[in-house]
Amino acid sequence: MVNEKMRGLGACRSVIRELFEYGKKRKTEIGDENVFDFSIGNPSVPSPAIVNETLTCLLQKKDAVSLHGYTSAQGDAGVRRAIADYVASTHNATVNPDLIYLTVGAAASLTISLSALTVAGDEVILLAPFFPEYRVFVERNGAVAVPVLCDTKTFQPDLDAIRAAITPKTRAIIVNSPNNPTGAVMTKESIEGLAALLSEASKENGQPIYLIADEPYCELVYGDIEVPYLPHFYANTLICYSFSKSLSLPGERIGYILVNPDAEDATAVYQAVCGAGRALGFVCAPALFQYMIPAVIGKTADISIYDTNRRLLSEALTSYGYEVVNPDGAFYLFVKALEGDATAFCERAKEHELLLVASDSFGCPGYVRISYCVTTEQIQRSLPAFKALAESYKTEK
Amino acid sequence: MVNEKMRGLGACRSVIRELFEYGKKRKTEIGDENVFDFSIGNPSVPSPAIVNETLTCLLQKKDAVSLHGYTSAQGDAGVRRAIADYVASTHNATVNPDLIYLTVGAAASLTISLSALTVAGDEVILLAPFFPEYRVFVERNGAVAVPVLCDTKTFQPDLDAIRAAITPKTRAIIVNSPNNPTGAVMTKESIEGLAALLSEASKENGQPIYLIADEPYCELVYGDIEVPYLPHFYANTLICYSFSKSLSLPGERIGYILVNPDAEDATAVYQAVCGAGRALGFVCAPALFQYMIPAVIGKTADISIYDTNRRLLSEALTSYGYEVVNPDGAFYLFVKALEGDATAFCERAKEHELLLVASDSFGCPGYVRISYCVTTEQIQRSLPAFKALAESYKTEK
Repeated sequence: MVNEKMRGLGACRSVIRELFEYGKKRKTEIGDENVFDFSIGNPSVPSPAIVNETLTCLLQKKDAVSLHGYTSAQGDAGVRRAIADYVASTHNATVNPDLIYLTVGAAASLTISLSALTVAGDEVILLAPFFPEYRVFVERNGAVAVPVLCDTKTFQPDLDAIRAAITPKTRAIIVNSPNNPTGAVMTKESIEGLAALLSEASKENGQPIYLIADEPYCELVYGDIEVPYLPHFYANTLICYSFSKSLSLPGERIGYILVNPDAEDATAVYQAVCGAGRALGFVCAPALFQYMIPAVIGKTADISIYDTNRRLLSEALTSYGYEVVNPDGAFYLFVKALEGDATAFCERAKEHELLLVASDSFGCPGYVRISYCVTTEQIQRSLPAFKALAESYKTEK
Repeated sequence: MVNEKMRGLGACRSVIRELFEYGKKRKTEIGDENVFDFSIGNPSVPSPAIVNETLTCLLQKKDAVSLHGYTSAQGDAGVRRAIADYVASTHNATVNPDLIYLTVGAAASLTISLSALTVAGDEVILLAPFFPEYRVFVERNGAVAVPVLCDTKTFQPDLDAIRAAITPKTRAIIVNSPNNPTGAVMTKESIEGLAALLSEASKENGQPIYLIADEPYCELVYGDIEVPYLPHFYANTLICYSFSKSLSLPGERIGYILVNPDAEDATAVYQAVCGAGRALGFVCAPALFQYMIPAVIGKTADISIYDTNRRLLSEALTSYGYEVVNPDGAFYLFVKALEGDATAFCERAKEHELLLVASDSFGCPGYVRISYCVTTEQIQRSLPAFKALAESYKTEK
C-alpha cells in the first residue's frame, strides 16, 4: 500500500542515530556529564559571529519581499558569482557561476548529482569506508553501489582494487576527503593515480566516469596538510560542498554543486543537475542562507578546538595501546577495535559509558569511529574510561 | 553520458519561467512601470513583521550550536507539537506530532509524499488545471500522471470523470484548493462527493487511494469562503503545507507533511515518508525556520491587498467583456482567452505589454492565468492595456 523500499528506509534507524538516541536516554538516567557520547558528527564549535551578524543585517536591511522571495531555481546569480570568485581565487582555477547550483545541503548535492549522472543499473564506486547514506542515495534510482575498500595500512584509495572494480557500467565514483569516518586526507599521489586510472577507464568505456567529490570537511585540516583542488587533476569532476561543518551550520542545509567547466559535456551535466533539482523538489535553496554566503565564504568556526581535541584524544588513546589512524582532517578518529567484532567492542565500550560507532556500516569492519566534535572537557573526562576499556582487554590475555 | 530524462527537464524552461525572463528583459528596454508582468506567483506582500522579529530574536537569544545544529530528521519535536496543536485547535481535529514531517517547502512535501506512496507504473490522478510541476514530480520515479479535467462551468472537480479515470493502479490523487491557477476553492459538496467515490474505489481496488492535499493557499481566501479540513471527510489524507504563500516566504522553503492519524496504515505511510525524505536527501528542514514556526503559525501577510487586487482586476476585466472564473482563493485570476488558441492570445497580449500565462501547460487549454500578487498600482496601470486588448478583438468581428 506504500512504497515498501521507502518504508524500509524509514522504519530502521541508522546505527549512528540508534546510538545517539541511546545516549540521550542514558544521560537522563545517570547525568549528562557521565555519558561520553562520541556518536554523532554534529559540530560542537559554534558558528563564527559573522554568521549571525550577517543574517541579522540581512533581516534588518534587505527588503523583505526580495529577501524572502524566490531566487532563480539554481540560486541567486550574485551569490553564484561570489562562490565562483572565491573558489577561482583560492585554487587558481577556472570556475563558471553558471555551472554552480545552490543546494539545501550536502545530502541534496549528492542526490541531485547522482540523479543527474545515473540511471537504474548504472554502477557507482564508493570508496570504503564511506558515510553509509551514500549507499541509500545511489540505490534510490536503481543504480548499483560498488564499495571498494581502501588500503587499510594507509587509508588511501586502493588504486588496483578500484581499477578491478570498474566495468562498462561504471558511471561515477564518490570520494570524500577529508574523510568521514577515517579523518584521512587523499594525498596528491593518490589523486594523480586515481585521475590516471579514471581517464584510462573512461576511454575504455567510451564515456566519462565522473568524479563526485563530497567536500564538507575541506577546510577542516590540521598541521600543514593540504587538500588539493580535484578539478586540477581530473576534469570530469563535480564538487559537492556544504557549509555545515566549516561554519557549524548543519541544521541550516546550505551548499552547492560545482560542475568543473572543463568536464566533458559540462553544459549537459549542468542541465541534468538542474533537471534533477527540479524533479526531486529542490529548486531554490533557502534564500536567507544563500544571501549570507558572500560574507562568510572561506571563513570557519574556530577549528583550533577540533585540533586540540584530536591531539589530546589520539595521543592518549595511542598511549593506552589503541591503534589510531592518523587524523589529518575532519573531526573523526578511526581506531582499531580491540577485538575482531567491532560491534561487540562497542557494546563493551557502552559498559564504560563510551558511545562509539562500529565501522561495519561504513563498509570497513573492525574499527570504531569516534567523533571528536565535542567539548574538550568531555574528552578529558572520558580518558579514564578509554583506559579502563583497554585494560579490560589486557587482563583477558 | 548523463541522465537524459533529467537533462531534458533542466534544458527547457517552464512557460512561466520563460515569460518571467522575457519580462525582465522587456523592463530593461522600456522601463519597469511600462511592463505589466502577471506571470509569476511570487508573493508581492511582505512577510509580517513578526517573521523577522522572531528570526532576529532566535539569532540573538538561542545558543548558536543548538540553533544551527541538526534537528531530528523529521524535524524538531517541539515544533511538530506546535504545528499539531495549531491544526488540532483550528480544525477541531486529531493530529499526532509524530505523524508530521517538516520539509524544505511544498515541492519537497510533494516529491516525498509521492515517493512514499508510489512505485513505477502506479497511477496518480491530477485534477486539471494543475500546477505543471505536479506531472514532473509524479513521473520522476516512473509513476503515471492521469490528468482529469474539472467541470469548466464551475471549476469544481468533475466527479464522474474522476470515477472513470480510476483503475486498479490508481494509488493517489493530488488536490490543490484553493487552486493554482484557477483561484477556485473546492466546495463542501465537492469534497463529500470526492471522498465517497474515493472510498468506494479504494474498496474495489482492495487498497486505499490516498488523497494528497497541496494546501499552500489555504489561508488565502476571500469573503466568507471556507476551506474545509479534508481529513474530516476522507481519512486517507496527507496534507502538504508550505508557509511560502501565507507568510510570503517562498524563498525560505519551509513546510510540512501531515499524515492523518486515521489514515489506513498511518504508521506505515509515515515510515515511508521518513524513508523517502532520507533517500531523496531531505532530512532535517532548515533549522532556523523550523524554530520560527511556533511564533508565526496561523499568521499571514496582509492579504487584504490581494483581496483589493482581485476585486479591482476581476471587476474591470468583466466590464471589458472578459469571462472571469470566480476567484475565491489564492492570488490567481483564470480568464477565458479571447480566441481559441490561448498561446496566440498571450502573444497578442505581449504587444500590449501584458504578460499572461497560457493555461495549456496546466492541462486545461483556452484560458490565461493572471497572478495578481503584484502591487495594486501595477493593476491600475495595466487596466487600459487589458481594455485595449479586448477592444482589438471586438474590432475584428
